[in-house]
Amino acid sequence: MELTGLSFIGAERGSRNGTSFQAFAPSTGEPIQPVFRAATLQELDRAAQLAAEAFSSYSRTTGKARAAFLRRIAEGFESHRDDLAQRAHLETALPLPRLTGEVTRTANQFRLFASVVEDGSWVQARIDPALPDRQPLPRPDLRAMLRPLGPVAVFGASNFPLAFSVGGGDTASVLAAGCPVIVKAHAAHPGTGEIAGRIIADAVAAESLPPGTFSMLFGAGVEIGAALVKHPAIRAVGFTGSLRAGRALMDAAADRPEPIPCFTEMSSGNPVFILPGALRKGPAALAQGLFGSFTLGAGQFCTKPGAVFVAESPQALKFREELELLVKQAQPFTLLTGGIAREYDRASIARAAHVSVVESPSPSEQENGSSPFRAQSRLFTTTLDELIKQPELADEIFGPDTVIVRCGNTDDYLKAARSLCGHLTATVLGDDEDLAANRDLIQILEQKAGRVIFNGFPTGVEVTHAMVHGGPYPATSDPRFTSVGSLAIYRFARPVCFQNFPQAALPPELQDNNPLGIRRLRDGKPETPAP
Amino acid sequence: MELTGLSFIGAERGSRNGTSFQAFAPSTGEPIQPVFRAATLQELDRAAQLAAEAFSSYSRTTGKARAAFLRRIAEGFESHRDDLAQRAHLETALPLPRLTGEVTRTANQFRLFASVVEDGSWVQARIDPALPDRQPLPRPDLRAMLRPLGPVAVFGASNFPLAFSVGGGDTASVLAAGCPVIVKAHAAHPGTGEIAGRIIADAVAAESLPPGTFSMLFGAGVEIGAALVKHPAIRAVGFTGSLRAGRALMDAAADRPEPIPCFTEMSSGNPVFILPGALRKGPAALAQGLFGSFTLGAGQFCTKPGAVFVAESPQALKFREELELLVKQAQPFTLLTGGIAREYDRASIARAAHVSVVESPSPSEQENGSSPFRAQSRLFTTTLDELIKQPELADEIFGPDTVIVRCGNTDDYLKAARSLCGHLTATVLGDDEDLAANRDLIQILEQKAGRVIFNGFPTGVEVTHAMVHGGPYPATSDPRFTSVGSLAIYRFARPVCFQNFPQAALPPELQDNNPLGIRRLRDGKPETPAP
Repeated sequence: MELTGLSFIGAERGSRNGTSFQAFAPSTGEPIQPVFRAATLQELDRAAQLAAEAFSSYSRTTGKARAAFLRRIAEGFESHRDDLAQRAHLETALPLPRLTGEVTRTANQFRLFASVVEDGSWVQARIDPALPDRQPLPRPDLRAMLRPLGPVAVFGASNFPLAFSVGGGDTASVLAAGCPVIVKAHAAHPGTGEIAGRIIADAVAAESLPPGTFSMLFGAGVEIGAALVKHPAIRAVGFTGSLRAGRALMDAAADRPEPIPCFTEMSSGNPVFILPGALRKGPAALAQGLFGSFTLGAGQFCTKPGAVFVAESPQALKFREELELLVKQAQPFTLLTGGIAREYDRASIARAAHVSVVESPSPSEQENGSSPFRAQSRLFTTTLDELIKQPELADEIFGPDTVIVRCGNTDDYLKAARSLCGHLTATVLGDDEDLAANRDLIQILEQKAGRVIFNGFPTGVEVTHAMVHGGPYPATSDPRFTSVGSLAIYRFARPVCFQNFPQAALPPELQDNNPLGIRRLRDGKPETPAP
Repeated sequence: MELTGLSFIGAERGSRNGTSFQAFAPSTGEPIQPVFRAATLQELDRAAQLAAEAFSSYSRTTGKARAAFLRRIAEGFESHRDDLAQRAHLETALPLPRLTGEVTRTANQFRLFASVVEDGSWVQARIDPALPDRQPLPRPDLRAMLRPLGPVAVFGASNFPLAFSVGGGDTASVLAAGCPVIVKAHAAHPGTGEIAGRIIADAVAAESLPPGTFSMLFGAGVEIGAALVKHPAIRAVGFTGSLRAGRALMDAAADRPEPIPCFTEMSSGNPVFILPGALRKGPAALAQGLFGSFTLGAGQFCTKPGAVFVAESPQALKFREELELLVKQAQPFTLLTGGIAREYDRASIARAAHVSVVESPSPSEQENGSSPFRAQSRLFTTTLDELIKQPELADEIFGPDTVIVRCGNTDDYLKAARSLCGHLTATVLGDDEDLAANRDLIQILEQKAGRVIFNGFPTGVEVTHAMVHGGPYPATSDPRFTSVGSLAIYRFARPVCFQNFPQAALPPELQDNNPLGIRRLRDGKPETPAP
């Protein structure tokens, strides 16, 4: 697919009037062709107007029609698998097999939401029939279901150029809910974004949907994103990225004349607690598993285990020694952007002033160390007492590092858990006996994270119905939602109650004869299917 | 029940150190005994600490235990029906029969939530079993359910001293979700608040729940409320009141170091569209129905119809004349507080400078007009063109007034509907033929309101499973939630995913054998009950 470097404004393409920018190849640090053009504020306004126009008809498409659209996008991703993976590899230096797999995941996300909207029960239809004889007053007929919010702004993330970007989970859940989407493409992988944008725009046209159903805006700075969140036509925001950028969007959304829902997935240390049973299974294997998890994708996962609590013991010492050895022997990693690499080194150096650190050889000491995007793995070690005094010692540093927090004994884990802020995940490694002996720990962790993991590493995030990729601030802006899994659709819908409407004027989801055959509640109880 | 004028700090009572204040009898404008004492900031902090302590055990009570607690509160309200109604009558001047009925409604709200948590399915349990043979990697076992958010701050409203106040729908839904609550009692009916607080505190003790499960703070100014929303132990906010106060709470919640969910129900004009069929049924009856609705409770309903769109016709003229007659003949109304009465007159006078107005005789012209809380009914009339130029002409004025908006024809209704901001309700009056001819109007109204009503007045708000008392800003802070009906519980819960947990360590809601017999999804499909 030939890249033009231009935004998608509905069915049209953006102009060449905006600021120009280029992607950089992290493997060399050199700019890549073509030149991209930031969308202008006029183009943004046009995209927002088209989205508002599209909303009235797109919001009324049937679940079946929306499923066909989402499946067509999924097919588009699969049929451009090589284009997407190769361009993403160039722009991110993530391994090709990982990116090929990410195309599959991206397609599967659209298919998951296709199945949800085709099934149709996600709208949570509720019927409370009229009670004409109720005293002292009759009860009217009341029927409620979820309806889409309106046009949504989505911000692609840097670390998953496919699954969390232009055609990522946010876009899939927005479109599934019945909302038009305007994506701000991430400037670090604009070519990948353009291919994904083309796939979605083509699907909009092929399904004869209103052109404003999808727009995609390029932009290298914060101007376009800030203006998008402030635009009156935008009714909600989905974002994955840094705490600083996420909080800025939250504040902008809250500060609008009409504040809007804003879901930002931001920062998570993903604490891991090591219980005795995990060490008994073998300190070396544990160290290898953990090293693999915190350096996966060069440590650029939202769910990277960034703080590991371990109580002193001979086996714990062995585990730490094994981990140090793995870090010392590690080859340099390549980070996604120069900005991430600089911030990684800045934050690491600041942290090393307070805690002990072991690191892999510096890139300059190695043959392949020429790119400014290269980074060393780092293992910090501190104590619980120090961490409680300086909680920022376990703040997320985006990259291939983690912090070992030495604890006196496992009782200290309760103190440690209570001191945690919000995280996407919290992990406990041990055996069933450990779990039974640490119920209190689990109960505290459940309050601190969206997902609690037993004997696994947090870096794998399944796209299923029970997945929760969320958590209390600063992990996300709102702990009541998730950005991964089918529950993510609920960020973009709102209940509407129809009172006293004749059958013919009701949406099919709420008609007595249940033409769509969806699951509903009648007076709060599951409706018995008609015979 | 003897009133002490002191806050409830868990099982203890507040001190006499805070600022003193009194309620006023709206019927006379005179202060009422006893003197109340505002909670001090130290007492607030103590209540918050107790709530945080209570959370760890209260959040783990079974649905059955929580149902027993909620039903005991319901019984407490009923057994203090006369005390409550009489004190509320003194403090609000609302009619005794209305207040007696409101006690029943309040008790029923607790019973509705008792039935929801006893049933248990509200936690939306989802199970995605492990797929050990999946390629390229096994899928872990994933199980998600809703868990309570943490201690919640609730602000009682002035206009429903029982059903939306200390023991109102917010408190009932917070406690049902498994969250401790700290209520800021409304200063206009503190005695009613104290009786309700006593009922709930007694139920906490009788059910042997942790004392911090419930606290209630008095305060006459904004200090205590502002400090409550800022307190780190508070995890969410529920509020019903004015746009100004609600927006201040939203801003405070969003501006915290850790922002928290804040549901505020604020301001709604509840537009009504009159279609030809409604006028054919009789202009006089329509005028009477509308007059009854906008003056119900002296016009102090969140759902008061504050803007009525009517297309010119001979019957429309007759309807407007009938309505004018009803307003001109109306006795003075008594408002809830001096502040509401002053604001009602200020806003009415400001509006009358721009539009024509008809009003009932001034209280001073009548025998019973001595209280400064008295107010005249007012009927404003403007045109759609004027309203579109000055949208503030239809902003909510809390009191017994409404605005007639004259339209050229029913096609103008589309223009009118598109110009609306968010509302709690939107109403269409007409016949089935009108409804079929105005599909587009309904589709626009659905985007503007939480509840769309056909042939009814919006002032009745049923407490059921399908009720939506919500809507886009400024009706509420977040259109994805409701403050009335069983869906209100979802404001105070968040999903938590348990990955790879052994059966014995899972909450019963997520165990394979489903010991609670709740409805669940397995791989996204309803689980077949075990034989």
